[in-house]
Amino acid sequence: MEKKIVIIGAVAAGPKAACHLKRLRPGWDVTMVDQDSLISYGGCGIPYYVCGDVSDEAELRSTSFHMVRDETFFRQAKGVEVLTRTRALAIDRKEKVVRVKNLDSGEERELAYDKLMLATGARPFVLPIAGSDLDGVFTIANLHKAIEIKKRIAGGKVSRAVVIGGGAIGVEMAEALKDLWGIETTLIEFMPQLLPKIVDWQFAGMLKTHLEEKDVTVFINEGATAILGDEKGMVIGVQTPKRTLDADLVIMAAGVRPRSELAAEAGLLVAPWGGIIVNQRMQTSDPDIYAAGDCVALTNLVSGRETYAPLGSLANREGRVAGDNMAGIASRFKGTVGSFIMKAFDRCIGATGLTYEAALAEGFDADYALTAPADRAHFFPGEAIAVFQLVFDRTSRKVLGLQGFGVMNDAISVRIDAAAVMITAGAVIEDFRDAEMAYAPPFSAAIDSINAAAFVADNLCADRLRKLDMDRFLAWMEDFSLEPDWMALDIRHPLEAGPFVEKFGKDRWLAIPYIEVRKRYEEIPEERTMIILCDAGTRSYEVQIFLDHIGKNNTMVVSGGFNVIRRLGVDWLP
Amino acid sequence: MEKKIVIIGAVAAGPKAACHLKRLRPGWDVTMVDQDSLISYGGCGIPYYVCGDVSDEAELRSTSFHMVRDETFFRQAKGVEVLTRTRALAIDRKEKVVRVKNLDSGEERELAYDKLMLATGARPFVLPIAGSDLDGVFTIANLHKAIEIKKRIAGGKVSRAVVIGGGAIGVEMAEALKDLWGIETTLIEFMPQLLPKIVDWQFAGMLKTHLEEKDVTVFINEGATAILGDEKGMVIGVQTPKRTLDADLVIMAAGVRPRSELAAEAGLLVAPWGGIIVNQRMQTSDPDIYAAGDCVALTNLVSGRETYAPLGSLANREGRVAGDNMAGIASRFKGTVGSFIMKAFDRCIGATGLTYEAALAEGFDADYALTAPADRAHFFPGEAIAVFQLVFDRTSRKVLGLQGFGVMNDAISVRIDAAAVMITAGAVIEDFRDAEMAYAPPFSAAIDSINAAAFVADNLCADRLRKLDMDRFLAWMEDFSLEPDWMALDIRHPLEAGPFVEKFGKDRWLAIPYIEVRKRYEEIPEERTMIILCDAGTRSYEVQIFLDHIGKNNTMVVSGGFNVIRRLGVDWLP
Repeated sequence: MEKKIVIIGAVAAGPKAACHLKRLRPGWDVTMVDQDSLISYGGCGIPYYVCGDVSDEAELRSTSFHMVRDETFFRQAKGVEVLTRTRALAIDRKEKVVRVKNLDSGEERELAYDKLMLATGARPFVLPIAGSDLDGVFTIANLHKAIEIKKRIAGGKVSRAVVIGGGAIGVEMAEALKDLWGIETTLIEFMPQLLPKIVDWQFAGMLKTHLEEKDVTVFINEGATAILGDEKGMVIGVQTPKRTLDADLVIMAAGVRPRSELAAEAGLLVAPWGGIIVNQRMQTSDPDIYAAGDCVALTNLVSGRETYAPLGSLANREGRVAGDNMAGIASRFKGTVGSFIMKAFDRCIGATGLTYEAALAEGFDADYALTAPADRAHFFPGEAIAVFQLVFDRTSRKVLGLQGFGVMNDAISVRIDAAAVMITAGAVIEDFRDAEMAYAPPFSAAIDSINAAAFVADNLCADRLRKLDMDRFLAWMEDFSLEPDWMALDIRHPLEAGPFVEKFGKDRWLAIPYIEVRKRYEEIPEERTMIILCDAGTRSYEVQIFLDHIGKNNTMVVSGGFNVIRRLGVDWLP
Repeated sequence: MEKKIVIIGAVAAGPKAACHLKRLRPGWDVTMVDQDSLISYGGCGIPYYVCGDVSDEAELRSTSFHMVRDETFFRQAKGVEVLTRTRALAIDRKEKVVRVKNLDSGEERELAYDKLMLATGARPFVLPIAGSDLDGVFTIANLHKAIEIKKRIAGGKVSRAVVIGGGAIGVEMAEALKDLWGIETTLIEFMPQLLPKIVDWQFAGMLKTHLEEKDVTVFINEGATAILGDEKGMVIGVQTPKRTLDADLVIMAAGVRPRSELAAEAGLLVAPWGGIIVNQRMQTSDPDIYAAGDCVALTNLVSGRETYAPLGSLANREGRVAGDNMAGIASRFKGTVGSFIMKAFDRCIGATGLTYEAALAEGFDADYALTAPADRAHFFPGEAIAVFQLVFDRTSRKVLGLQGFGVMNDAISVRIDAAAVMITAGAVIEDFRDAEMAYAPPFSAAIDSINAAAFVADNLCADRLRKLDMDRFLAWMEDFSLEPDWMALDIRHPLEAGPFVEKFGKDRWLAIPYIEVRKRYEEIPEERTMIILCDAGTRSYEVQIFLDHIGKNNTMVVSGGFNVIRRLGVDWLP
């Protein structure tokens, strides 16, 4: 029996479900409804469109074979009807009809459905502060906004911009404005770090340092209290508790919220924060109504908790599962491990699973291995340091998450993706130790960074490695009186360690090269707690082991070493 | 109780075990023995040293912090004794001593051990043909050989080279000779394809085409029958059954064989082909003797069979496991899925698990999904096509392998590594479908290529997609009489398809653009078997589904489409 399918929302999840379903059931009647005129665009590409990497917005709406995905395309190529500029007003679940309104003609009509799918997406959160509606204040809501932002910049009307919100979109937009257009750009984030809840503070700190190197001004712990305008209603600045920032463009990137009013009004189960509740078949509380994409609540596969993950990649996979199930083919979308990756100028930052902070908050016996190895054979040209943090549970030895920060290529992606699929499968430290990463010098080190991170985690679990948290180390460097008995043991090359001894004094900074520790260990004062330092933390661990062996147990290793410290942009380096 | 550990072989597995063990048991007495003077080098880096990417051989023997790993380094930094230029002559298992001989002084002595480890590595296979010992014929056996090759090239003594063997080392050496030095280079391979048993023929074919684009002459199905020399004993050429190739340098890269004579003579269990038999703790048949690295037999985790995988990355991980177990810490190395990756000029080729050919040979209900998607968002600058082949078992839906071919960056690595860890965990098609690859436009497509490959596999298992094997298609293109009723249905843009219609005639080549199939399908002759063609195979699948729906079932899709065909370098393109 041929069925009628109505899908509300024609970006990502909606089109994916529609086209997949139409391939599974070519005779069925599939209609998509969207209130916008532009549909099926790659919203994640907006920052690259604004910065000019993508020259034409139509590219964001095109297939890989360069056809624009408009109503005609969906009808001709896919056999899917699309009603654009058409808003869904209400769902009558008893009669199984959706009332829709054409936004141009004002005409209302009813669309009957056998199965309905909600792919209503998300809307940007607009801060409830004065001036949010001024001319020149933009959210990254849709392609129209993006087109207008770019037009304004290209027209030479923007010389100073403020981006409110240091999440992924905020950072990407800051790069877009600064990098190609040279706009004086300030990024402000209300929370104490960039990418809050996505990465741990060290990774946010390395990102912040890099943005600053690229002349983006970054203020954390600083929210916008008002947006300021002139008498014509044009934006002129942003007020924070600490300062007034001049601006002729303000990007409000304070996160997005699920668009679920239609679902709620139809009596479907919706989480208090707005996510539509679905089961693993992407069915809402009404089995004839499916939902997918940025409007739904998902399950975090590591914590088991309800989560929100508005990402185009998940939306597509959810859409396919919804399509399967609407066609009557059992198929499940189990949840997300929260994989994340982004480009920020010349750097890449990525994460999957839980951060250390989140793992602690979830009650895990959490610990982390912070490493800073080479991203490929150290002798191969173009090799670069990549910083990784493997988060794990000491009791179960389960790996809970991985974060990475490196130069802008796919090296972080390699490890984050391998970690994500292992974490999804419930991997323990041994699985990471055994992970068979394809090896040749242009691609990885003989001991891949993911294996190396697991080795460190293993050493930590076995209490062979005692580490000092980077934040405690940095605090001590600001104020030695915090730990009067601590003393740095710098095992780097004398040319590297020398200036530190000179700056901080022989009472605080002892330099014995790695290679000489076995013969010069008697120079190490017995009563002082030695903070062992090298570039990555690896040699420091070896020295710690040796010192333990000869009976000097009061030592700690600064994991990640100067490779991390330098990237955190501290101001005390000699 | 402190123990004496002797390790025979000081490259990769040996040093890794020695250093790890010394960290676990700092008080133990660890001695490495090696017949060479150069130790602990990155043998995999030799091609990059020869081509000049790595300027000094010492870099291959250096740590990431630029210290040369020689005897002094191991003693001072690691507390490990190393006897170089010292050959192990025999093992007395009853007395637990190894008899060794200093190759310089001729002095013999005995080293007592509590635990012994064999890390004797591999030796290059020297073809049993005349002329193998001529001056100018080299294997890639060790650093000395590499240094001599480079010296000879740098001295301007080489203008024509022949590389015998189209495995990874052969291809890497061909690139090294051609790319930097501009040497006229010919690569010959006895088997019908390059990288035999590592990748399927299509992938070998794409590699061959690229090598030829880079002016390396490649002959497959062609072995060396003799190496020719002049009266002074200098090499002057290579004889094959088909031709004589001039050469003043010959690289013999015909594979390597385990060095296991010492083990065999000591009565340890050794496979007929030479691999030392070990259990998962890397113990040989004598529980006090361990073995790791290129000298051991491993288990292929997909087929369950004994396999040989001489790779630096595995050697390191095996070495660590051997170290753990010698220290009394239970630790296992379970085996390998056979991950492989290499750079070849501007391309990257990688594989993990079983090839389709191997899967069939192992008796699996094998099938494969051949895809050719973009390696990142198609609108992102620098995006490129990557060809993947997912091999799976139709009955169990287990994924057996993945191969990839793309431009030289880490995009293939990303997917091969994620696949490897999933295959290790016994993943099925659904796990690949659900793989959560971190998404942002600079890194991947919203539907990652690994998900896309699983979608195709799913379509194949559900018999929604009927594909035509590329070899059958190519054979037909050479001789239409093989299948007189076949006709191409080219759904690409008319500008692309037009020249094909012109060249092959309207009776063989029907061009209907993808977008017009739903209205022009009546032009398709009912009785002919239509071979549907597009760039990647994706649109062809959609068209097949539609044609099935309207009752035309005699169609087949050329998976991978022209993206693969073009990379195979066929000569019939108009």
